[in-house]
Amino acid sequence: MKAKVILVTGGARSGKSTFAEQLAAQAAGPVAYIATAQVYDEEMRHRVDLHQERRPAHWQTYEAPYHADTVLEEALQGPAQAVLFDCLTLYTTNLLLQLAESVSREQRAAQILAAIDRLLAAARQGTAPVIFVTNEVGMGIVPENPLAREYRDIAGWVNQRAAVAADQVYLVVCGLATEIKKNAVWL
Amino acid sequence: MKAKVILVTGGARSGKSTFAEQLAAQAAGPVAYIATAQVYDEEMRHRVDLHQERRPAHWQTYEAPYHADTVLEEALQGPAQAVLFDCLTLYTTNLLLQLAESVSREQRAAQILAAIDRLLAAARQGTAPVIFVTNEVGMGIVPENPLAREYRDIAGWVNQRAAVAADQVYLVVCGLATEIKKNAVWL
Amino acid sequence: MKAKVILVTGGARSGKSTFAEQLAAQAAGPVAYIATAQVYDEEMRHRVDLHQERRPAHWQTYEAPYHADTVLEEALQGPAQAVLFDCLTLYTTNLLLQLAESVSREQRAAQILAAIDRLLAAARQGTAPVIFVTNEVGMGIVPENPLAREYRDIAGWVNQRAAVAADQVYLVVCGLATEIKKNAVWL
Repeated sequence: MKAKVILVTGGARSGKSTFAEQLAAQAAGPVAYIATAQVYDEEMRHRVDLHQERRPAHWQTYEAPYHADTVLEEALQGPAQAVLFDCLTLYTTNLLLQLAESVSREQRAAQILAAIDRLLAAARQGTAPVIFVTNEVGMGIVPENPLAREYRDIAGWVNQRAAVAADQVYLVVCGLATEIKKNAVWL
Repeated sequence: MKAKVILVTGGARSGKSTFAEQLAAQAAGPVAYIATAQVYDEEMRHRVDLHQERRPAHWQTYEAPYHADTVLEEALQGPAQAVLFDCLTLYTTNLLLQLAESVSREQRAAQILAAIDRLLAAARQGTAPVIFVTNEVGMGIVPENPLAREYRDIAGWVNQRAAVAADQVYLVVCGLATEIKKNAVWL
Repeated sequence: MKAKVILVTGGARSGKSTFAEQLAAQAAGPVAYIATAQVYDEEMRHRVDLHQERRPAHWQTYEAPYHADTVLEEALQGPAQAVLFDCLTLYTTNLLLQLAESVSREQRAAQILAAIDRLLAAARQGTAPVIFVTNEVGMGIVPENPLAREYRDIAGWVNQRAAVAADQVYLVVCGLATEIKKNAVWL
């Protein structure tokens, strides 16, 4: 793996996490797995369990529902030859729910994007490659729920920033990964 | 058509059915059309009518809201030189609604995926090519309705399995079909 | 810019407008910007302001919530060396809300598509290139709201027609634009 930062995006159950895990498994040494999910109900427990069953038992797991930049820096100081961060959209959800009602809409977006920038900067500063998983959430109709619209906006901006920071960007559809940064049109 | 199994995916009204029909029309003989829609209201009647008006009158239509593997085997034993199955997502919906409340969530997913595996196996065993149409349903925000979330998960898994079984996979956006399996990154 | 009509599609906050603005900025002279948004609340005001802050101050702005074909013809008769139309989906929303309840469902679709055809014809008749921005809205689950389903259908048809009229079609994901018409599979 020569790329330092890799972004893997796709819809729900598109196979993006599986593809990202296969990428990470190519590392010539230990893999650090950074999980962002917060288990607050039965359904989320089920989703997290499905992910865990699939991962090699020897991967070191870090929990990073918040302050993921610090957790990533810690993981990069360990023996990991690759770091898998799954995922940016859940992390964005955690930050948005934490900030909701305490600060204004503009401040929420600014603070979340600043946190994402710190995370991406940490990834670029390490020596091991970091693979970020994210979700495409903006190709349905406009949600009726205002918080969902706000989330959709921020998640889109997060993905754009991650794609700028990434050396490679993969879009996964039906389990098939296409490299979209290499073939993108640059103006 | 040298491919045995072809998957055509895309969003609602992306032109995926039209593209799949054009693919089927290239067959050097009769085409079997397998319809999965259940007409339970006026709107669905309208949607089905729109599809039917577009298809050549001489195509043989099979109805397969359930047991589609058996229907596909039957169609493949007839004179058809190509089979068009439209679509996997509606078929998944039918199975999910049939199973809802009678078995557990895990069993619903397992039974639906087993049914899809039987369908894909039937397609691979025939001599005529089979074109499956499906939908991308996972690129919006997480639905608030639990059954919709469950459906979205299963539909994503169905698409991944279909893409594994397919020789060619097309993603249709704005009526434009791109072959995504040929160009996919394999690890 | 040799293309006469260019279509730029993508999800919400995918970077499609930014990419379209960069395309327009390549013109060797003044740019006409045709805005379709109707500001009916605080949130829409915020969205429109974000777009405006990003555009060069010397671009000439036209408002076209309705009768966009006439506005486009007017813009094409001016000094503009490129026209940016942002966006087809908002324009479709305006027309649909205007027609809702006054005519039948079939008539709404027919009238909107006729208006889009007039708009695309106007674009093809001008000498300056016209860049249309649109949204992918059909890759989430089926909306529960009937008007949202109707909108989703019409928006998909609008995108297909625009892609037929366009010389180039770009899909933007995570800020990365891929040319999808050039590489499309033609039957």
